[in-house]
Amino acid sequence: MTRLNRLIPASIWLKDYTRADMQTDMMASIIVTIMLIPQSLAYAMLAGLPPAVGLYASILPLIAYALFGSSRTLAVGPVAVVSMMTGTAALQFAAPNTAEYLTVVILLAAISGLFLLLMGLFKLGFLANLLSHPVISGFISASAILIALGQAKHILGIQASGHNLIEMLETMWYNLFTTNLITVCIGLGAIVALYLLRQYLKHILRTFGLSYHQAQLASKAGPVLVVVIATLIVAVLQLNKAGVKIVGDVPSGFPPLALPSMDLHLALDLLPAAVLISIVGFVESVSVAQSFAAKRRQSIDPNQELIGLGAANLSSAFSGGFPVTGGFSRSVVSFDAGAKTPMTGVFTAILILLTLSFLTGAFYYLPKAVLAATIIVAVLQLIDIKGLIEIWRYSKQDASALLATFLVVLLVGVEAGIITGVSLSLLLFLWHASHPHIAVVGRVAGTEHFRNVERFQVETTNDLLTIRIDESLFFANARVLEDRITQLIAKNKEVKDVVLMCTAVNMIDASALESLEMICERLHSAGIRLHLSEVKGPVMDRLKGSTLISHLSGNIYLTQNQAFEDICSKEE
Amino acid sequence: MTRLNRLIPASIWLKDYTRADMQTDMMASIIVTIMLIPQSLAYAMLAGLPPAVGLYASILPLIAYALFGSSRTLAVGPVAVVSMMTGTAALQFAAPNTAEYLTVVILLAAISGLFLLLMGLFKLGFLANLLSHPVISGFISASAILIALGQAKHILGIQASGHNLIEMLETMWYNLFTTNLITVCIGLGAIVALYLLRQYLKHILRTFGLSYHQAQLASKAGPVLVVVIATLIVAVLQLNKAGVKIVGDVPSGFPPLALPSMDLHLALDLLPAAVLISIVGFVESVSVAQSFAAKRRQSIDPNQELIGLGAANLSSAFSGGFPVTGGFSRSVVSFDAGAKTPMTGVFTAILILLTLSFLTGAFYYLPKAVLAATIIVAVLQLIDIKGLIEIWRYSKQDASALLATFLVVLLVGVEAGIITGVSLSLLLFLWHASHPHIAVVGRVAGTEHFRNVERFQVETTNDLLTIRIDESLFFANARVLEDRITQLIAKNKEVKDVVLMCTAVNMIDASALESLEMICERLHSAGIRLHLSEVKGPVMDRLKGSTLISHLSGNIYLTQNQAFEDICSKEE
Repeated sequence: MTRLNRLIPASIWLKDYTRADMQTDMMASIIVTIMLIPQSLAYAMLAGLPPAVGLYASILPLIAYALFGSSRTLAVGPVAVVSMMTGTAALQFAAPNTAEYLTVVILLAAISGLFLLLMGLFKLGFLANLLSHPVISGFISASAILIALGQAKHILGIQASGHNLIEMLETMWYNLFTTNLITVCIGLGAIVALYLLRQYLKHILRTFGLSYHQAQLASKAGPVLVVVIATLIVAVLQLNKAGVKIVGDVPSGFPPLALPSMDLHLALDLLPAAVLISIVGFVESVSVAQSFAAKRRQSIDPNQELIGLGAANLSSAFSGGFPVTGGFSRSVVSFDAGAKTPMTGVFTAILILLTLSFLTGAFYYLPKAVLAATIIVAVLQLIDIKGLIEIWRYSKQDASALLATFLVVLLVGVEAGIITGVSLSLLLFLWHASHPHIAVVGRVAGTEHFRNVERFQVETTNDLLTIRIDESLFFANARVLEDRITQLIAKNKEVKDVVLMCTAVNMIDASALESLEMICERLHSAGIRLHLSEVKGPVMDRLKGSTLISHLSGNIYLTQNQAFEDICSKEE
Repeated sequence: MTRLNRLIPASIWLKDYTRADMQTDMMASIIVTIMLIPQSLAYAMLAGLPPAVGLYASILPLIAYALFGSSRTLAVGPVAVVSMMTGTAALQFAAPNTAEYLTVVILLAAISGLFLLLMGLFKLGFLANLLSHPVISGFISASAILIALGQAKHILGIQASGHNLIEMLETMWYNLFTTNLITVCIGLGAIVALYLLRQYLKHILRTFGLSYHQAQLASKAGPVLVVVIATLIVAVLQLNKAGVKIVGDVPSGFPPLALPSMDLHLALDLLPAAVLISIVGFVESVSVAQSFAAKRRQSIDPNQELIGLGAANLSSAFSGGFPVTGGFSRSVVSFDAGAKTPMTGVFTAILILLTLSFLTGAFYYLPKAVLAATIIVAVLQLIDIKGLIEIWRYSKQDASALLATFLVVLLVGVEAGIITGVSLSLLLFLWHASHPHIAVVGRVAGTEHFRNVERFQVETTNDLLTIRIDESLFFANARVLEDRITQLIAKNKEVKDVVLMCTAVNMIDASALESLEMICERLHSAGIRLHLSEVKGPVMDRLKGSTLISHLSGNIYLTQNQAFEDICSKEE
């Protein structure tokens, strides 16, 4: 790997790029574009933005990711959850459909891009691990409900807004009397049509003689079909004059290239939201990218992914777009359509640019209710009740983290929910780590094996207490060991030697080291010696220079059996 | 243990209480009281309170702890660090020496007591583990500097205040011209005297024929000697008329029994500070209690300690006092003086009550500079440079957490410092856990042992990849395993079977379970089977009902050797 290869992964695949690759990539890009156009319009609406911004966010970011990303198949662009988070965050600083709102959103994309880039450069991808699976699952399910409910206003043709379930239901309730019946018919019709097409289009296409693979791919165009038919109906019947909200004029031409706002104060205010958007987007994206990489035995580099997504978001900000990330549904289609390289993204970007230049007039009569319907149908699949049941069966603790995240996102808001979930995960882990399994062990007669005295018939002596701890020793459990040893020697008054058996100790941090010194000193003041046995190589290497070893009242034994025999023989 | 014994540990030792115990406890209480009087006056001053409040906090809390605490020797009352934290917190809500300030401080004690009590009842003592040794060490050292500097104003006889080093130095600089020279002489004289007495009083007393033990105990009265002499000098020369600040009138009589303020809004504002004060106090107290318990082979129960300290703080609040906890120096003296039971605390409380009733006039001419000197000499010992060097040698990461806490406490403030330290500890731990040791292993020829292929000459086959992970699997490293396996199978194109060797896996949480399912599915789609080997009993118990086991493409082997032989024989 040359330096160029590391910096721009595209340089690796570009030099072997063939005409055949180009053909399949082009085919795939046409299918992806057909999916992407209605999605980008819808997700822009979801983020409270004019439709054109969705298209802006689907050009330069795709090219930037193609250059810097490490996945060969990930389709980057606007996605539902990140668009909703963007809308929720921006609403706190400006009113939708104003110039300030757009400024805020573009700045969000810029900060998010910068943050991802820095995380990648400093190899901080591990921070994303803070979001455990249960937290993500609870967050996505609750977000899906919030998104669907947020779009219900477009189906009803009424005004509604809010950061959580209660606020949303409240504003919807007050505006319910303004419901537009034609809009409702179009919206519900679109939802039903989308569900039916998803279920049956594949089968119908197969009866027309398409192969299974072709039918599956073509069925992804279902939403486009619904959009086209609905647009035609509205245009022909001029339903916009009957109160049906339509997309209207979309400015055609190149995206506006400009620097994002340099308002440092606003940037600082947006930072927490941008960090959350970045991490949620990254986690989703990486997991999609990994699935496809494994299928083709390719590998992805999480830190390079951060750089790729960072570049995508920065270029989105510079071209008037909003935060983007790698999406699942378009990646599936791209992969199934045979996309070989990220060049598919470049071709898609060109097609979107052409659409923006020549086809924006076609969106004029597109009813917003239909876009809302496509969003609702897409996000309702994300609600994962089966996952919750499985996690509940496996671990009540993890399930409680999931439910807490779900409820707080739903009832309070996205940021509070994620913070609750992450804190709870950490606390539960800490609880777990601070309740390690500590066993008093003795020797199985006639062997060199040592086992828990409570479970096995083993040899022990009154003078010698051997304790095995089944966990690494670090700050979360350092004091627990102090407690337990204090209790054990208080119970066993005859003990003169304590052996700590370290078979399961992979690490000892400075807190645990100090606790061990403390234990040693306390035991010493009670006339008891402390020994260690079976200390692992790397742990021993670090201990060597420490004061614990120089102050240790007892010995360090390679094996527990040596400790047992040596101490027993001395005592007799 | 009866229910009463569990609820009120005092019921255990009270029923065996003898006349002999009473004599030693009484003797010890006299010595502790002699130490406690100047300390409680000084720490009240440190918290920005009238001297009497220090005495109030040294009566009921001692009795409450004697009833509910689990340590036999812990001396509870005002301590330096907690007093400083109290002062820092209260300053944000009221000006010192006002009625509002006292209201805030009493409320702090009440919330702190309630919080400790709830932590104890819900057995949440493990939360204190969040404060790692390096964080506590950095915090204490920085606090000691802030306290000493904060008291320097009394030595100089000037006005100064602030939450951090910069603010303090700034205000002191501006007021430096108001320095009172006589006060400086008294203050510096007291500091020198205290140092000399600490160094030599023991030796001097021994030349007067006292035993080593007696001399050591009596030397603890050094500060009282300085206080008495300084008071006499000021009284005789009437130095208060020359600008030397004195304690002045201390209201005599019983502490005022009253309910703390019920201002819910204020209480919520004080909550974060109260939580920090509680946890810091608890951690310090528990570690002191444990040292002494171990020496006498007694044991303490951290959750009962929470209840004891909670009761102490609540009763402090109800009697006009401020937050208290178990202190190191008085516990040492109490222990050395032969205190047998918590009855020592009860006797001390009675003696303080007598002092408050009849002796407050003796404090009139006590110069504040001398109280400041006792504080400075006491806290400067807490600065732990040797500890820092040891931690630095042992682990750069832990040392960086210490230094970060130290600097942020010093330059920004106590709360920001502790939050920084705790966050950094958690992040460092997370970094550690998300970089687990993962080794590809092979069989040592002629044995059943499997070792790292990079370190040992071992047998492997091209079709079979065996991976050993030396860490429990949970959210912090779940995705790391996904990454590594994706990379490894991308590198080894011939692999048909992957075995995950789980010897060091003590736990698998829901995140890791989902990652394993994901890995299994991805490997399956690449035509590779996933097997597990050497899964520990408790881990296997939980896995049994999970979807991982029902969807696993390969087998679960008891030993790695079985896995190796079975898979190799099938492949041949």
